[in-house]
Amino acid sequence: PLPPSPIPPLPSGFRAGGMACGVKASGAPDLALFVSDRPASAAGVFTTNQVQAAPVKVCREKLASGSARAIAVCSGIANACTGEPGLRDARAMAAAAAQALEVPEADVLVGSTGSIGPLLPMDRITAGLVALAPEIHEGGLEAAARAIMTTDTRPKWAGAEVTLSGTTVRIAGVAKGAGMIEPDMATMLSYILTDAAVSPALLQAALRRAVDGSFNRITVDGDRSTNDTVLLLANGASGAPPLECGTSSSASQSGSQTSAVHSGSATPALQTRPTPAAESDAAAFQQALDEVCLSLALQIVRDGEGAHKLITIRVAGARSDAEADAAARSVANSLLCKTGWSGTRSQWGRVMDALGYSPAKVVEERVAISYNGVPAVREGRMADTDPDAFAPIVGGDGFEVHIDLGLGDGAAVVYTCEITKAYVDINV
Amino acid sequence: PLPPSPIPPLPSGFRAGGMACGVKASGAPDLALFVSDRPASAAGVFTTNQVQAAPVKVCREKLASGSARAIAVCSGIANACTGEPGLRDARAMAAAAAQALEVPEADVLVGSTGSIGPLLPMDRITAGLVALAPEIHEGGLEAAARAIMTTDTRPKWAGAEVTLSGTTVRIAGVAKGAGMIEPDMATMLSYILTDAAVSPALLQAALRRAVDGSFNRITVDGDRSTNDTVLLLANGASGAPPLECGTSSSASQSGSQTSAVHSGSATPALQTRPTPAAESDAAAFQQALDEVCLSLALQIVRDGEGAHKLITIRVAGARSDAEADAAARSVANSLLCKTGWSGTRSQWGRVMDALGYSPAKVVEERVAISYNGVPAVREGRMADTDPDAFAPIVGGDGFEVHIDLGLGDGAAVVYTCEITKAYVDINV
Repeated sequence: PLPPSPIPPLPSGFRAGGMACGVKASGAPDLALFVSDRPASAAGVFTTNQVQAAPVKVCREKLASGSARAIAVCSGIANACTGEPGLRDARAMAAAAAQALEVPEADVLVGSTGSIGPLLPMDRITAGLVALAPEIHEGGLEAAARAIMTTDTRPKWAGAEVTLSGTTVRIAGVAKGAGMIEPDMATMLSYILTDAAVSPALLQAALRRAVDGSFNRITVDGDRSTNDTVLLLANGASGAPPLECGTSSSASQSGSQTSAVHSGSATPALQTRPTPAAESDAAAFQQALDEVCLSLALQIVRDGEGAHKLITIRVAGARSDAEADAAARSVANSLLCKTGWSGTRSQWGRVMDALGYSPAKVVEERVAISYNGVPAVREGRMADTDPDAFAPIVGGDGFEVHIDLGLGDGAAVVYTCEITKAYVDINV
Repeated sequence: PLPPSPIPPLPSGFRAGGMACGVKASGAPDLALFVSDRPASAAGVFTTNQVQAAPVKVCREKLASGSARAIAVCSGIANACTGEPGLRDARAMAAAAAQALEVPEADVLVGSTGSIGPLLPMDRITAGLVALAPEIHEGGLEAAARAIMTTDTRPKWAGAEVTLSGTTVRIAGVAKGAGMIEPDMATMLSYILTDAAVSPALLQAALRRAVDGSFNRITVDGDRSTNDTVLLLANGASGAPPLECGTSSSASQSGSQTSAVHSGSATPALQTRPTPAAESDAAAFQQALDEVCLSLALQIVRDGEGAHKLITIRVAGARSDAEADAAARSVANSLLCKTGWSGTRSQWGRVMDALGYSPAKVVEERVAISYNGVPAVREGRMADTDPDAFAPIVGGDGFEVHIDLGLGDGAAVVYTCEITKAYVDINV
């Protein structure tokens, strides 16, 4: 499910909008609102960077309640490395949005993306929120998606519909990415809305699982940012029966969508045994959420700064899934590989090199590498393939590098893009 | 001691030379010899990559004896990922050099650098060695330095003279670098020759220490190569008294050049107590070797592919030296920082970001950052410095980023360079 795709409708009970309030000197849109007409369960996943932007800290605090009504986002300034004044501004931004929307301050989450260091122009943001609040509407998702962009060349969105016990539920999400994108999330923001009814605990587990399989599988330049945030609101406006912990497969170690139900560890005696319908609903919701997150993540990679190719690094045959992941990330973050892939050669030697210095166990003579199924390396040596065969593959708009380490059953996939001269231009 | 500098004289008893034998299609020099007129102690430090080129494997085997007479090197093809045929070629190259030089085959070490995958053109290399062997001479170091180059824009050399118990001893070294340069050595080769008399065990310890403070302190693109090699031959032709284990400070944990003498663990009862002169000689030799290695390492960074700046990342105030090293490497390998430094802005926000995702403990509010002494960050926030003040610093041909984490006494330094569009051009 890659762009361009038509923008999905907002789920029931949500409105959104975007405008230019003057954070960006360019006059481009830089203020977005996402609002539910009723209290919603809320979940969030944030950057693992030790240096965290003020809005990340504020969201973490507010999410302790497990519910929210609105998200206010500005782009152009990250409000990172701004100390106590930055924290005050992030809280003031939430308060201003709450006042403009006439909802409790505790129910407003905030986000920022852009330059590290400067303080937010709070007068402009406050005035912008007052102007934007009355303008949000059911068709406002595209304007909101555009208002969170920085060096993105296009807005990013994805949607899904899923039927839960006979009722249609919608999920719609937007994201921004571009640079500073890396393992464990990076300067990327994503806001996902659904009219499913989901308990906060299950919502958090479902989001964590979806992020692990999507946003945490992508890397543009290996630089994890201070602001990465994925927020998910579920307002129940669809009328579908509520999904709660104990009905989800998301806590299963196996990761299988059809695995046996695990009851929560907190109060198992109080939990009713979920019906087969509830089990199936939870699995269907998770699958739809996974798809939305993966679509958004791949859109971010495809729009990596200066990049045009979606490169899939798939590793099999590692001693463990963790080692497969490490090997895939070593290749996906190799500057030499990624610079080479802006051309048309396979660069298999650089892939061998990156595998060799990865934390994963590698035995040179066991390694096999292919590109879209065309063998490049067999038993650690150049395969008997005409090198010209790789030109149309690597020269296209995306390809898959399949690496078999020949040592076990561990597997992983990471998505990345090439590094071009345009990346350098953008980041000087 | 940075280039350009006059080429140092070869130490007594050494000859060298270089020529074009046809490995490189360009016709540029691609074959080098370094030869001692008598047996020499030999030491080596190699890449930590799990994928190791054939010449690296062969050198490791041969160095078990602790002695060697000659080093034969070809550039243009790395002889990496070449399996058994590659190993046979590396051994055959040593045998051909041994025959041409009329020395035992076991005494010839080999090296290669260039493309991964192809087999060496052994007929051309063998013919080249036959032609080159009679042409080597005491003034041949520059030709040898040029013949090991790949994408280097200039040859790299360094020398030192040191007086040991009244006798002048010389050290001369050459290196090649350019891309794939990174922590723990990368596509770099360095060959260092001295007419000091040093036992193999001490020579290995001295080289390891010198490499840890020089070649292992540099990073160009974070890609560790399959071929990294530093070799050191000591032939004793100066007539200076021999340096042996027990006379060196290099085995000391403290690293201090004036620390107490540690006797070797093998046969301490047999060792004579070193004289103060021997202690002082060993320390003086180590210092000279350290200087030669650091000069060569910095020349490699300055000549990083497409790079023009020597950027020093100095971290203090970490909880440990290891954490300081991790923090410095995180910054020195940040693609965003290094791309930014091809311009004129300080990019302190990107430095904060890279510190935050390093394995080192970082507390945002404790961090201070300065550029050539000009403060950019105080207590985790932008310092009150005119941003224009950084333009002449970052826009120059080198600068030092000093980072104080404010958490302890750990310190480390790493040297790197900027990433430019020319890097992308070179590596496509």
